[in-house]
Amino acid sequence: MNQPANKNYQQLCEHFQNISHFEHLSALGDWDQAAMMPTGGGEARGAAMATLAKHIHSLKTAPMLEDTIAAAEQESLSGEQQANLREIRYQFQQANIVPGSLVEAKTKAAYHCEQAWREQRSQNDWQGFKPNLENVLALTKEEANIRAAALNISPYDALLDKFEPGMTSARLEQIFGGLKLWLPSLIEQVQDQQQHQPSYAIAQAASDAQALLSRDVMTLLEFDFNHGRLDTSSHPFCGGVPSDVRLTTRYDVADFTSGLMGVVHETGHAKYEQGLPHKWRGQPAGNARSMAIHESQSLFCEMQLGRGSAFLKQLQPQLKQRLDCNLSHEQLLNIYSKVSPGHIRVDADEVTYPCHILLRFEAEKAIVSNQLAVADLPDFWSQQMQSLLGINTDGDYKNGCMQDIHWAVGEMGYFPSYTLGAMYAAQFKAAIERQLGSIEDLVANGKLSTIMGWLNHNIWSKGSLLTTDELVQHATGDTLNPAHFKQHLIERYLP
Amino acid sequence: MNQPANKNYQQLCEHFQNISHFEHLSALGDWDQAAMMPTGGGEARGAAMATLAKHIHSLKTAPMLEDTIAAAEQESLSGEQQANLREIRYQFQQANIVPGSLVEAKTKAAYHCEQAWREQRSQNDWQGFKPNLENVLALTKEEANIRAAALNISPYDALLDKFEPGMTSARLEQIFGGLKLWLPSLIEQVQDQQQHQPSYAIAQAASDAQALLSRDVMTLLEFDFNHGRLDTSSHPFCGGVPSDVRLTTRYDVADFTSGLMGVVHETGHAKYEQGLPHKWRGQPAGNARSMAIHESQSLFCEMQLGRGSAFLKQLQPQLKQRLDCNLSHEQLLNIYSKVSPGHIRVDADEVTYPCHILLRFEAEKAIVSNQLAVADLPDFWSQQMQSLLGINTDGDYKNGCMQDIHWAVGEMGYFPSYTLGAMYAAQFKAAIERQLGSIEDLVANGKLSTIMGWLNHNIWSKGSLLTTDELVQHATGDTLNPAHFKQHLIERYLP
Ligand SMILES: [Zn+2]
Ligand SMILES: [Zn+2]
Repeated sequence: MNQPANKNYQQLCEHFQNISHFEHLSALGDWDQAAMMPTGGGEARGAAMATLAKHIHSLKTAPMLEDTIAAAEQESLSGEQQANLREIRYQFQQANIVPGSLVEAKTKAAYHCEQAWREQRSQNDWQGFKPNLENVLALTKEEANIRAAALNISPYDALLDKFEPGMTSARLEQIFGGLKLWLPSLIEQVQDQQQHQPSYAIAQAASDAQALLSRDVMTLLEFDFNHGRLDTSSHPFCGGVPSDVRLTTRYDVADFTSGLMGVVHETGHAKYEQGLPHKWRGQPAGNARSMAIHESQSLFCEMQLGRGSAFLKQLQPQLKQRLDCNLSHEQLLNIYSKVSPGHIRVDADEVTYPCHILLRFEAEKAIVSNQLAVADLPDFWSQQMQSLLGINTDGDYKNGCMQDIHWAVGEMGYFPSYTLGAMYAAQFKAAIERQLGSIEDLVANGKLSTIMGWLNHNIWSKGSLLTTDELVQHATGDTLNPAHFKQHLIERYLP
Repeated sequence: MNQPANKNYQQLCEHFQNISHFEHLSALGDWDQAAMMPTGGGEARGAAMATLAKHIHSLKTAPMLEDTIAAAEQESLSGEQQANLREIRYQFQQANIVPGSLVEAKTKAAYHCEQAWREQRSQNDWQGFKPNLENVLALTKEEANIRAAALNISPYDALLDKFEPGMTSARLEQIFGGLKLWLPSLIEQVQDQQQHQPSYAIAQAASDAQALLSRDVMTLLEFDFNHGRLDTSSHPFCGGVPSDVRLTTRYDVADFTSGLMGVVHETGHAKYEQGLPHKWRGQPAGNARSMAIHESQSLFCEMQLGRGSAFLKQLQPQLKQRLDCNLSHEQLLNIYSKVSPGHIRVDADEVTYPCHILLRFEAEKAIVSNQLAVADLPDFWSQQMQSLLGINTDGDYKNGCMQDIHWAVGEMGYFPSYTLGAMYAAQFKAAIERQLGSIEDLVANGKLSTIMGWLNHNIWSKGSLLTTDELVQHATGDTLNPAHFKQHLIERYLP
């Protein structure tokens, strides 16, 4: 019997399929920890997850990989196989840079920090949180320095590269620098225009009723409940695997409106996962492209669809039925396009949200370059919030630098993806409108499936077969162009 | 620096600690599959769990183990360390007998079969279930034959040994043979005595209310919710790890009474897990002793405590509060000591339950020795049910041979543990009463903690430090003696 012509490539595929099985279990552990696990289970779970992370790391750094990848690169492969091999090499490189002992130490510290954070945040306990965070960030910096040396880039760029392959702080400073030029005055103009808008009394809504409404909304957005579920956790997220996507959300009994859009947002993430190419499940080419592209899908759902007039109109019967909500369509529209600087990033409106990212981007750069100590973070936070949004957070840690889970679990360099995602989402909207007509009209005419079809064809089903720039170019005819985001904000908020 | 005097033993401990981390993830996957996972996630999960099982198997059969165990056996160890080493060797031997490829194939087939069974059972779809079961049982027989050859015992004994180390079908036939001599006439006598008891109308109770009641009962039984949780699944079980025990149950809106005792039962399993020795967490000596000892703890909770007069009296206020239940204490007692032959093992009363086990014991022996084909199982089932309990199950597969999950997941040789557990539970009761006085009095006087303390001291905290016979001897002054079970049944049902 002949050997297949691409036996090295086939061997790599088998190896990475195997890795994906352990990553599946890791995703399950993450979800369970956030949504299900009792507090007392944290210590043992942390140890188990650390061992799992170490095992995955050892598989990604298996001694045979270097030669097998080199040999596979000489084999005759299809274009898609070549793309998969590129992603295999990327994963191998990323894993090889960092020693297994550091991976394990960081995972353990992150689990410990996150567990404690759940309690500490609600108690505004900065003093309790600080040493855990210092521990996690010290390991994160160690990782950044090792990555930087290996890739010959700056430590912060080395962290960015984990979430946005190819993205640099220089490019980000240009993009965010541009934002700074027009966003503050736009926020002012919108606030001026909205200053006479009344505020609306929002009736209490039980969590159970909101959970039913959430399922309605997910169904409307064509979420596949045969391949996923919705639960609650203190920090909403989308996890699991493409065949079994785990969404979580939280419900505020006093105000259902933010939770509702939270579900729309996470459903956008989930649709991307559920739409990843079947053919490439378990292979690196079958993964989501990047964090920013992921966020573009959630923000597309939330901002381009969810907060639009036509979608809110469709939602009204369910709001009445599930929550006995009597808000008019105009009131809903006003609520969901209200611009108002606030403390909490995940509750921020679309217009002020980038300010929360600018703050975190500056803080991360300063921490990683040792210009800002963790102990000084609360002051830095308050100063930046003051200057960007006129908000003082002195002593209010839970609504300040303790609000996010990211740093607690050692994820630095992730935050910029949120605003990049908002920009990509606006760019996709512009492309769809050029190709298929107004999104508002499509939704109003019951053609949500047409929009989902475009996203599936152009984004979801592409997995990581294209690079980010190729994907965006292919879908929209251009690489990232922040002008679409500005255009979108002006259209919606300064009509 | 000197090497520790027991470096081989220490190396084994580290290795098995590592294994326990992967087993932790496996337990999580099992729980999630039963209680949380959407159907469409089954295929990918099955593949991931098979890879995990294969990995655990490879760790338990690591080439270095044989020599390291032999070397450790020459080292200077404490009595407890020697016990741990004995359990390490047992696990190594058990794992080495079966090739990894068979473990993987069986795990995959079992997951596939179980997934389908969830739907098929409710649809009474024997024709759909049969080929899946044949597949799983063919692999189980293959395993039995391989184990039998290695251990030089019969294939069925080799399966028993997985759940009850040292137990043989010869000893079981003697024990069960004894049962057969007195149980049928006892069932008749009890039914005679109960024939004029009225049947009681039980009010409907919503699942949510039953779930709250379940938490009350678990709290009464001192379940630690900081280290565990309760959820629902189609087949109640107790899983997870000692620091995070996962109970599941099911609620019947039309009759809360069986679900309530189901929770008491599973809480008994959970208490055992939560009480396993902290010092030995993650080591083989820290595991539960055997399936029969596990079942003895759940049955002690259910039969010796839960269905007793004093416990039911304590429960009455909660029954009123949660379910608005107006049953009198006498009515509750009658309901919970009603003897009535029925189709379903898990719903069977304490007196007829062993008949369900006798049937399965006979069926398993016949299947493993190729005297019974899976295709003929429904007929065999109906005949046995007819002769043992006077019940015909022709065509009623869902309440016949499709009712249990065990065979669907390849667990043969497990069923006898249930009745062995009932016998051990009765023997523990007798020992407690000799040492501490009547269990009814202890419960009535608010001294449930005293009973829990006895179980913790004599059973839970011993883990696997003793053999089963040593454990029982140490706790009760005797090895297994079925006379206590007979005595218990006579006291309760023929007073
Ligand atoms: Zn998001
Ligand atoms: Zn049990």
